[in-house]
Amino acid sequence: MRLRGTMEISAQGHLVIGGCDTVDLARRYGTPLYVIDEEHLRDRCRRYKKAFAGAHKAEVIYAGKAFLTLAICRIIEEEGLSLDVASGGELYTALRAGFPPSRIYFHGNNKTPAEIHMALEAGVHRFMVDNFYELELLSRATHLAGRKAQVCLRVTPGIEAHTHKYVMTGQIDSKFGLPIETGQALEGIRRVLASPGIELHGLHCHIGSQIFDTAPFAAAARALLEFAHAAYRATGWVPEELNLGGGLGVYYTEGDTPPSIEDYAKTIINAVHETASRLGMKVPKILVEPGRSIISPAGTTLYTVGAIKEIPGVRTYVTVDGGMGDNLRPALYQAKYEAAIANKMHDLPACVVTIAGKYCESGDILVWDATLPVPEPGDILAIPCTGAYNYTMAMNYNRFPRPAAITVYRRHADEIVMRESYEDLIRNDIIPARLQRNETCSRPVHV
Amino acid sequence: MRLRGTMEISAQGHLVIGGCDTVDLARRYGTPLYVIDEEHLRDRCRRYKKAFAGAHKAEVIYAGKAFLTLAICRIIEEEGLSLDVASGGELYTALRAGFPPSRIYFHGNNKTPAEIHMALEAGVHRFMVDNFYELELLSRATHLAGRKAQVCLRVTPGIEAHTHKYVMTGQIDSKFGLPIETGQALEGIRRVLASPGIELHGLHCHIGSQIFDTAPFAAAARALLEFAHAAYRATGWVPEELNLGGGLGVYYTEGDTPPSIEDYAKTIINAVHETASRLGMKVPKILVEPGRSIISPAGTTLYTVGAIKEIPGVRTYVTVDGGMGDNLRPALYQAKYEAAIANKMHDLPACVVTIAGKYCESGDILVWDATLPVPEPGDILAIPCTGAYNYTMAMNYNRFPRPAAITVYRRHADEIVMRESYEDLIRNDIIPARLQRNETCSRPVHV
Repeated sequence: MRLRGTMEISAQGHLVIGGCDTVDLARRYGTPLYVIDEEHLRDRCRRYKKAFAGAHKAEVIYAGKAFLTLAICRIIEEEGLSLDVASGGELYTALRAGFPPSRIYFHGNNKTPAEIHMALEAGVHRFMVDNFYELELLSRATHLAGRKAQVCLRVTPGIEAHTHKYVMTGQIDSKFGLPIETGQALEGIRRVLASPGIELHGLHCHIGSQIFDTAPFAAAARALLEFAHAAYRATGWVPEELNLGGGLGVYYTEGDTPPSIEDYAKTIINAVHETASRLGMKVPKILVEPGRSIISPAGTTLYTVGAIKEIPGVRTYVTVDGGMGDNLRPALYQAKYEAAIANKMHDLPACVVTIAGKYCESGDILVWDATLPVPEPGDILAIPCTGAYNYTMAMNYNRFPRPAAITVYRRHADEIVMRESYEDLIRNDIIPARLQRNETCSRPVHV
Repeated sequence: MRLRGTMEISAQGHLVIGGCDTVDLARRYGTPLYVIDEEHLRDRCRRYKKAFAGAHKAEVIYAGKAFLTLAICRIIEEEGLSLDVASGGELYTALRAGFPPSRIYFHGNNKTPAEIHMALEAGVHRFMVDNFYELELLSRATHLAGRKAQVCLRVTPGIEAHTHKYVMTGQIDSKFGLPIETGQALEGIRRVLASPGIELHGLHCHIGSQIFDTAPFAAAARALLEFAHAAYRATGWVPEELNLGGGLGVYYTEGDTPPSIEDYAKTIINAVHETASRLGMKVPKILVEPGRSIISPAGTTLYTVGAIKEIPGVRTYVTVDGGMGDNLRPALYQAKYEAAIANKMHDLPACVVTIAGKYCESGDILVWDATLPVPEPGDILAIPCTGAYNYTMAMNYNRFPRPAAITVYRRHADEIVMRESYEDLIRNDIIPARLQRNETCSRPVHV
């Protein structure tokens, strides 16, 4: 396992993150446990800010869908990043954390009237308008509320980045945005410009996730600017903002070769500056929306090893006390992860095993081939790079409570999400009167 | 869309389930909404009970992982089925619903010491022992508690049913159970028999899910009995119980041809009776664990149509207000569903569209090619056969609250799971003191 961020190995051979011994953390907070290396998270925010400081004007917007809690909002705000929210629930979280609405960008391919109303009342900085129907809803809402909406228009530039098809979004056949190629994007601009309560500031596109090549980002920037230029000739409108979405890949396992944040930024800045100059356009403000590439490498999940099943000649299953309910990515995207035994970091690799979860499903495998020292029940297993799309996709399948999350920072651990209790699982359950019995729910349960 | 259970079409052309107009239900409870046709659910329980009444002795055990809430526990209990729980959380739910522990079967491939303790204290009817490590933990726990544990041993018979590899569990390369082929299953029997606080009652296997052929069930029954016979000669132990797990498929879309519950039962009963007779063994009690085939056809999810995006020459996306967060199966297993517009059941099919969800992910597509009347924003879209593995796998991705669930029964609707609120989403979030500010969490939020 490659050490990331502040990871180090103690004299005892324990994995240490943020100055905290992970074996102690597992004992103190229980497992499974999401551990966020706050120094690393903050460092990646700062690298993004600095890398884009070379642009004429730029803004870095954290994509909340990767991982968003009240505490994460606070850290993102302290680091001076803006925030992309994709739902009323993410917006609610941000507002409850006191995140300034003037730095909130509101996304979504099917915003409901209630969400639009909520965002308008909150005064979000930008509505990222996805489609004509949303534009209608927004028009009506601004009229009713007597408020203006500041928007960018999401378009699909027809760029196909090489990534998993579930996270590939720039191609024309996409549920997101208005395609440039079909003329719908231009029609979108016309309609926004004709909407009295709505002010158009720029264009947005997002070409996909976990991308290892900088070329598609440059291509998207050029395509967007060329479209903006054509749109200018057709409508006279000039975009102030060019939002290129997110998508920078991260290292999960050997063979993953993401560009650095700095190279990514340089590529985009150059493409925008050169294209604007070639087209004789004013250089727009550049906005990017990194999520995974900020938070993923900062997260590590700790598990306790339980049953170990050796099927001679076939495979050894090492089972942990979590699985697809806290990390859906292997089952959903065939995602690959490294692993380590956090209490045996000095031990030599001794076997190749399959790390299985405890969910009642064959697909609940976290790592197919992990090279580890000899594992034993009670060992603490660490899977790094689980900061993004792990907690956010956590579920209660099999009615397992969702894990706690903590930050570790300069030798100090803080709980940022409490572990769910069994009581949490039935909190919203109701037994209708006709199904009730006298003794229902009254029997004591020993947990 | 094929009508299921009590579904009918009203004079107005609305979809009616359990005597309730689904368009009214959507208005009253909001969308997305899980609707459970209780009559249909109860009917399927009764068909299972009746179909297995032909066996010498039999028991039908509902697999809670398909869908389990307090109210569902009550219905299952009223219908006289037993209950299979796969975790401490499912056990907790059952106990809090007052479900009799004497009818609870406790499953799981990696039960924790805490779960084993809890189940022992509750007095569950059977521990379904998966592996040697669990046996050690159970031995220790029975010794400490001064209680006996009643167990069945889960084995893998080496049967491969044709189904999605994530839900295929009978083959030897499985994280579940002890393989017969390697001798580990026999070793398991020896060890259980040698454990003082543990009483062995039978054998268990589960060959997979969503199976359309009865032959593999017969093959599994034969393999299990042949193994029992060999084990008898080696140890003198005779199984009282033969638990064949679940796996009977259901009709989701055209081309799905599941056997009837009655044919499935007949096949299993015949295989067990014939094999026992051939081997000169006492006919054991037959146990089955249906989950999906009981609850899936009883569930329908209602959505409201939002943005509709026609990409000329490519595809029309009809977006609803739910998606992968309330139905993970299309993204996880490439599962297929039918769909209908609940307020246009008399309208003729007019187009083939793609039904997309509102989650920020390209993979969030519910149905790739649905034949529908002309859809419009505000229509109520119904997706049937969503009773199993939909609510249980629901998540808060993008911080969308999880939907409500209701039963409909004889013209009456009852809420059985409350819709989550935005407040629910941040209930377990903590802002550590060092990240707090004075105004944090105090600003009012308009929802």
